[in-house]
Amino acid sequence: MREFDRWSASWYQLFEISLEGSYPMANRKRTKRHSKKAGLPPGTLVHVGERRLESVRITVIDYDENSFQEKLVPRIEDCFAFKATPTVTWINIDGLHDVSIIEKIGTHYDLHPLILEDILHVGQRPKFEDLEGYIFVVLMMFRFDDESQAVLSEQVSLVLGPNFVISFQESIGDVFEQIRDRIRNAKGKIRKMGPDYLMYALLDAIVDGYFGILERIGDKIESMEEELVGDPSQRTLRQIHNLKREMVFLRRSVWPLRELISGLQRSESTLIKETTGLYFKDVYDHTIQVIDTVESFRDMISGMLDIYLSSISNRMNAVMKVLTIIATIFIPLTFVAGVYGMNFEYMPELKWRWGYAGVWLVMLAITGAMIVYFKRKKWL
Amino acid sequence: MREFDRWSASWYQLFEISLEGSYPMANRKRTKRHSKKAGLPPGTLVHVGERRLESVRITVIDYDENSFQEKLVPRIEDCFAFKATPTVTWINIDGLHDVSIIEKIGTHYDLHPLILEDILHVGQRPKFEDLEGYIFVVLMMFRFDDESQAVLSEQVSLVLGPNFVISFQESIGDVFEQIRDRIRNAKGKIRKMGPDYLMYALLDAIVDGYFGILERIGDKIESMEEELVGDPSQRTLRQIHNLKREMVFLRRSVWPLRELISGLQRSESTLIKETTGLYFKDVYDHTIQVIDTVESFRDMISGMLDIYLSSISNRMNAVMKVLTIIATIFIPLTFVAGVYGMNFEYMPELKWRWGYAGVWLVMLAITGAMIVYFKRKKWL
Amino acid sequence: MREFDRWSASWYQLFEISLEGSYPMANRKRTKRHSKKAGLPPGTLVHVGERRLESVRITVIDYDENSFQEKLVPRIEDCFAFKATPTVTWINIDGLHDVSIIEKIGTHYDLHPLILEDILHVGQRPKFEDLEGYIFVVLMMFRFDDESQAVLSEQVSLVLGPNFVISFQESIGDVFEQIRDRIRNAKGKIRKMGPDYLMYALLDAIVDGYFGILERIGDKIESMEEELVGDPSQRTLRQIHNLKREMVFLRRSVWPLRELISGLQRSESTLIKETTGLYFKDVYDHTIQVIDTVESFRDMISGMLDIYLSSISNRMNAVMKVLTIIATIFIPLTFVAGVYGMNFEYMPELKWRWGYAGVWLVMLAITGAMIVYFKRKKWL
Amino acid sequence: MREFDRWSASWYQLFEISLEGSYPMANRKRTKRHSKKAGLPPGTLVHVGERRLESVRITVIDYDENSFQEKLVPRIEDCFAFKATPTVTWINIDGLHDVSIIEKIGTHYDLHPLILEDILHVGQRPKFEDLEGYIFVVLMMFRFDDESQAVLSEQVSLVLGPNFVISFQESIGDVFEQIRDRIRNAKGKIRKMGPDYLMYALLDAIVDGYFGILERIGDKIESMEEELVGDPSQRTLRQIHNLKREMVFLRRSVWPLRELISGLQRSESTLIKETTGLYFKDVYDHTIQVIDTVESFRDMISGMLDIYLSSISNRMNAVMKVLTIIATIFIPLTFVAGVYGMNFEYMPELKWRWGYAGVWLVMLAITGAMIVYFKRKKWL
Amino acid sequence: MREFDRWSASWYQLFEISLEGSYPMANRKRTKRHSKKAGLPPGTLVHVGERRLESVRITVIDYDENSFQEKLVPRIEDCFAFKATPTVTWINIDGLHDVSIIEKIGTHYDLHPLILEDILHVGQRPKFEDLEGYIFVVLMMFRFDDESQAVLSEQVSLVLGPNFVISFQESIGDVFEQIRDRIRNAKGKIRKMGPDYLMYALLDAIVDGYFGILERIGDKIESMEEELVGDPSQRTLRQIHNLKREMVFLRRSVWPLRELISGLQRSESTLIKETTGLYFKDVYDHTIQVIDTVESFRDMISGMLDIYLSSISNRMNAVMKVLTIIATIFIPLTFVAGVYGMNFEYMPELKWRWGYAGVWLVMLAITGAMIVYFKRKKWL
Repeated sequence: MREFDRWSASWYQLFEISLEGSYPMANRKRTKRHSKKAGLPPGTLVHVGERRLESVRITVIDYDENSFQEKLVPRIEDCFAFKATPTVTWINIDGLHDVSIIEKIGTHYDLHPLILEDILHVGQRPKFEDLEGYIFVVLMMFRFDDESQAVLSEQVSLVLGPNFVISFQESIGDVFEQIRDRIRNAKGKIRKMGPDYLMYALLDAIVDGYFGILERIGDKIESMEEELVGDPSQRTLRQIHNLKREMVFLRRSVWPLRELISGLQRSESTLIKETTGLYFKDVYDHTIQVIDTVESFRDMISGMLDIYLSSISNRMNAVMKVLTIIATIFIPLTFVAGVYGMNFEYMPELKWRWGYAGVWLVMLAITGAMIVYFKRKKWL
Repeated sequence: MREFDRWSASWYQLFEISLEGSYPMANRKRTKRHSKKAGLPPGTLVHVGERRLESVRITVIDYDENSFQEKLVPRIEDCFAFKATPTVTWINIDGLHDVSIIEKIGTHYDLHPLILEDILHVGQRPKFEDLEGYIFVVLMMFRFDDESQAVLSEQVSLVLGPNFVISFQESIGDVFEQIRDRIRNAKGKIRKMGPDYLMYALLDAIVDGYFGILERIGDKIESMEEELVGDPSQRTLRQIHNLKREMVFLRRSVWPLRELISGLQRSESTLIKETTGLYFKDVYDHTIQVIDTVESFRDMISGMLDIYLSSISNRMNAVMKVLTIIATIFIPLTFVAGVYGMNFEYMPELKWRWGYAGVWLVMLAITGAMIVYFKRKKWL
Repeated sequence: MREFDRWSASWYQLFEISLEGSYPMANRKRTKRHSKKAGLPPGTLVHVGERRLESVRITVIDYDENSFQEKLVPRIEDCFAFKATPTVTWINIDGLHDVSIIEKIGTHYDLHPLILEDILHVGQRPKFEDLEGYIFVVLMMFRFDDESQAVLSEQVSLVLGPNFVISFQESIGDVFEQIRDRIRNAKGKIRKMGPDYLMYALLDAIVDGYFGILERIGDKIESMEEELVGDPSQRTLRQIHNLKREMVFLRRSVWPLRELISGLQRSESTLIKETTGLYFKDVYDHTIQVIDTVESFRDMISGMLDIYLSSISNRMNAVMKVLTIIATIFIPLTFVAGVYGMNFEYMPELKWRWGYAGVWLVMLAITGAMIVYFKRKKWL
Repeated sequence: MREFDRWSASWYQLFEISLEGSYPMANRKRTKRHSKKAGLPPGTLVHVGERRLESVRITVIDYDENSFQEKLVPRIEDCFAFKATPTVTWINIDGLHDVSIIEKIGTHYDLHPLILEDILHVGQRPKFEDLEGYIFVVLMMFRFDDESQAVLSEQVSLVLGPNFVISFQESIGDVFEQIRDRIRNAKGKIRKMGPDYLMYALLDAIVDGYFGILERIGDKIESMEEELVGDPSQRTLRQIHNLKREMVFLRRSVWPLRELISGLQRSESTLIKETTGLYFKDVYDHTIQVIDTVESFRDMISGMLDIYLSSISNRMNAVMKVLTIIATIFIPLTFVAGVYGMNFEYMPELKWRWGYAGVWLVMLAITGAMIVYFKRKKWL
Repeated sequence: MREFDRWSASWYQLFEISLEGSYPMANRKRTKRHSKKAGLPPGTLVHVGERRLESVRITVIDYDENSFQEKLVPRIEDCFAFKATPTVTWINIDGLHDVSIIEKIGTHYDLHPLILEDILHVGQRPKFEDLEGYIFVVLMMFRFDDESQAVLSEQVSLVLGPNFVISFQESIGDVFEQIRDRIRNAKGKIRKMGPDYLMYALLDAIVDGYFGILERIGDKIESMEEELVGDPSQRTLRQIHNLKREMVFLRRSVWPLRELISGLQRSESTLIKETTGLYFKDVYDHTIQVIDTVESFRDMISGMLDIYLSSISNRMNAVMKVLTIIATIFIPLTFVAGVYGMNFEYMPELKWRWGYAGVWLVMLAITGAMIVYFKRKKWL
């Protein structure tokens, strides 16, 4: 058991490296984590992943159309009071290393132990579970951090209940800031809607985050195509390869999203109201568009490889032509010079008055013939 | 939210460049638009895309079997009167930057806010929505502008209601002129049919427009194949690559069309009468044919790449052969000349009466042997 | 509208060229037809395609188990009398350019205008329509014309009614001659069966015609494989490419056939009797076999390309080896000769009695060492 | 009509050649058969395929749990008596050229004419037909003949009736010998079971025969991989290509098998008892395994091609390096020697006492520098 | 019959070699086993596979929430008493060569003969059978043996009955040790659950074992990518090829797992309680993740091949450039020297005072021009 956990976490980091590798400002260190769970039964909760924070940060936003409160709570127990109120409660947990918090939430909100495991073990395949009393969603969140100029990725788990949404993140910083603003300022209709609309808003923000990454990759592809046309180097090849790997990873994160969201849409759970259905359809359309783009990018990248390879061939061709032109002109001339460098006693030409000039004429004629030949072959 | 909008618009432009790149007379400027929507709630309407027109142009065509009127209206409110009449009304909006017009239409015709967003955010994946009271379709329109000799593409949104069709375009100029003529002159049965037949006619015109593009691409493929056989260059490779990219883009626009139209066909909406069904089937067949052709073109283009690569190899081969022939003939001769250029005191050959002539004979023999060898190898 | 017609006709010709290109005796002229229909409403009938005949030829075969008559009729109206008789009537139209004939048939047999359009617009994707009162099928017919040694392709449309089959061809000459013979001579059970069996017989003859083409392509592949193994040239590459294009076209014609015939089979139309079902199953099996073969050929052709490319590499390798052997043997020898061609005053070797002989020995030793080296490297 | 027959038979032979080509001891002659059926109506029975036997051999095995008899019958009519008995009768026909025998069986056992055609026309796609009163199966049988060391393939047709199985083979020799033994000696439960179990046993023997072929191909792949790593040649390439073609053919024979057997399994025919179902499931599993292996082999073979191509490149690289090393060392040296071979009157170095030795030092220094450079470049 | 057995066992070994080949410490011997079963009826039980153990080891673990006993039994009959008790019994058989034991189990637990065959014939495709009274599962188990540093693979068969699980392994040593510990120490809820939970735990442990292998392969890919970027060699190519083959094999083992486990999940057998369903879903998710990773690895490996090939090209390019630079600089210089080495009587330059110096200047000028040219071409 739990070989899986170690593995999924390491896969997860593998990508981080790859992506950082191509966004140069991110740090590259990689710590080989040892399995923290080997030998434990499946019910035991252990956080697998880098400890990204000093302490877990818990924030609660509680609202309905008329009221609103937001607070940073020190202990998870402080949130539990909201469970009884009819208002929409959004509990956000930043940091997964304090297992006891997750356990308490699990007990209080009646979450299945396997769900708690999925929350803690980063590197999950995006998926959706429709369980009695709540809906569980786990997926990857990508975001570009302006400060470090790096693409950051982390696993986000969402639990939708009758009057609450709980979100679990690995570290502080997310793509939800605008949603918070909209709740705070009662912009749009988010305050009038239930927790299913909040769930939609969170998913939509995460999927929108993918477009940000894709835009960056698109820019990269474009700039690399210019490089390819101009002056491709071994470095270009490495970059193409990195892009390819990123697409491999993105596909892994994006394809399951499709099932996930269409599952949510078709779900017959009473937790998702009919009026919200159209919004989930919208997220679904965006997901399809992300998938389409990922596939198009894959096509483009493999096209770039073809161009790169034929650029190399072309350059080799150019090198060969120069060599051939120089060699085929001078080798015969050198031969001629060699002939009259021979020391035979009887070589009548050597005594001719115009011998030397004649040789030059011969050599010029050879050169001319060669040049005409190369022109005809279009090598010059 | 709305990261998506910025993104989709930029993808959209990416293609424009690509296509223009290969149809040389189009202008190439590309303005990097900044996100106009970042931070707004999902309900807010903002036009994302280039502002292509100074002012929005609104035209109304209202007809039934016996009556017909067409007018250019300054304000959108002037169209609303037609909603109450039983005649078929076609409202065409050229230009999307005046959001208030879209909003007013939305309010008057009861369109869902997400639909209005889809209309405004160019770069949508073609799709079809069957909503209560109306059917919404969004897709790409391609047309070749004879004046600028460029392929123009824009997003077209169509809304079909009980007695009206509203079409939204980004700029003036479309593939609908013949339909207008047919309505004006009561050619064919368009004046006898309802708005669903008008919807069909518009879709049919758009899909027919794809054949125009494909024909052009087909011509291009053909002329490039001749170039390939004749004298391929690095430029040829770039053109192949551009064609490939265009096919990637076209696929993205064309594949979803299939679902879209088959969705329309199978739709159980009462807005589409049974008699019009066969016409939609016809459009569907054309769409399949477009898809088939796009796929065939992809096959052909990848075949061209293979030919290009092997042409390069062949040429390198030819260069190498010339070099080898010249070098292998003259290097031994030069050696022979070098031998008799040595200054040893005791070199009996140098004193022979026929030494010099003998050396020439030897050299001719070597040359002859080489030529025979090359002939046998079929290099000459 | 009708951009499609021009397009489909030109696609159609594109292939003709390709196929003719590889069957050298066919003529190559290609006339760029201008759109005859641009600007007309969808109901207007215009023949799009080359005018292949001077005048339309109409033949009628009318039979039942006991009676038989066959005649060439000058006017289409002469056929209409057969509609009322219980016998099976087969009307064959060679030539599509006289639109009025098609129109009259359409009126008399109650065919939908869109069906008439499909008949006239060559280049249709093979398809099947089950309409009220009749079944419509359109597909491509291939046949090898012994006279011109060319593969001829034309569009065939079949209409199956309660007691008639109408077939539309572009030109005289088809694969149906044996069927006519069987009807004339009451061979087999064709005379005992209804029009659905005649329909089957026609489809079967067309699909059997595909095997003829495939056999020819198979022969070509085989002969080209021998060429590949023997002496591949740039011409070989072009032939491979042509074959590939033909397969692309054939796929386009063949894949839809599958749906078409399985559609016919599963059709619940009363026009096709249960006893004929097994015969359609037989045609279906043949179609699958055609598709299988086309796919296998595609595999083989792409394998041939691989072989071609590696043949080129191998040959380049051989050229390089010759160059390298010659150069690496003679360049050191020339150097040695050059050394003793220097004019230093103090060069003791020049005065040695056996200096010259010694140099020859050194040079022979170098040559021997090189040869041993090349032998060990297996270059000789 | 019947173009198909000629075609399928020739395809069939095409493979035979290919396979024999790679199993060198088989004979290679190929007779181009002319269509024997062109112009005949579909009901006419003609054997299409090579006549492999002098006379048709008919054997009957009749058994139940207690009784057993086996005999070689001269005339097919001698078998017909068994139809009335309740025992299981297995009639095996070796040789298809005597059409009258097939016709008599068809009449006596009430087989549909199209089924009789399928039996006679070798080169059928494997298929399964569930007809009233009997089940018909046609597939390919492969077997390795120890005597001729060749892979033999022939078409086998099986007809399962209420108390009989009829098998049709093209020639004597099959993979059924063990089944005969088991019936003769009442080994296993075959004598206790009905004709459906016999059918299963025959199919199982045929599918098991595929593993024999695959094992041979696997061995071949393995030995070729060793060759690839060691010393690949043009011959290796040809062998890879042959293997690839064989896989193309095998796929064609194997993929339809899947449908065939799953069709048998799911068939609701009363001819197959429920208890035999599990056995058919077993054959199905084996078929899937055959398909899996064929696909894996295809992957491996295409991997071998990649290795082959890069081996060629590597070797070319090696050749180039030798040339470059020799040339770049000696060309400068030759130049130096050439300089002091000039005949200028005023060349002070020529008169220096240590000039000659100095030149040697310079030349050694150049050589040394070159060698260091090559070492650093890892070319030496 | 049984050709299949020989074959499947040899496939099985083929992989072992491949995997061992890349994990160098494992032993490489491969004994070509001869078919032990050829000619036997399908009911006969014969073990096909290497005899991996001296004697068969049978262990029984019997437990419920309160009681627990574990013992090593010498004879299989000693286990049969547990069948009557209500406790959960786990019988584990290490070693398959003693057919009589398998037979006795088959008789006692009423297993179908074909199931017994599947257990004995290693090399089965993973599959699941839902039979009356028990569920049968066969799949591959991979584990890394720390002692021998080799990846070990063996076939595991599991039989789930109303109150027992029987597991069959080829050799001692498995991935179940932690499960045994959990049962012994009553860790987690395994002691409180039934045999279906035990079944889940075993499957989960096996699937988790796959992650261990994948992690190793991932490490390998990463280290090889570094090698590729640094200094790729022919050995690298071989390693890429080996990895590719391993992926081919892994796919074969992993893809059927998906069906297998989803089959178990959807099974309507009463042997699997509803509460265990979610656990099987968890295993299913892990399986999907294994498949995803295998596919991603395949993508990466084929990307590595591209890089390898273009690295070779790049290197050839570098070699060519060096050759070209040296040759194009010195060949003209050598020619110049050759000219003034000619022995014409009338060569005025030879007598000039500054002739020699002038020649040097000319040669320096040529060299300079060449260097400028190469700089501009970016070859230097």
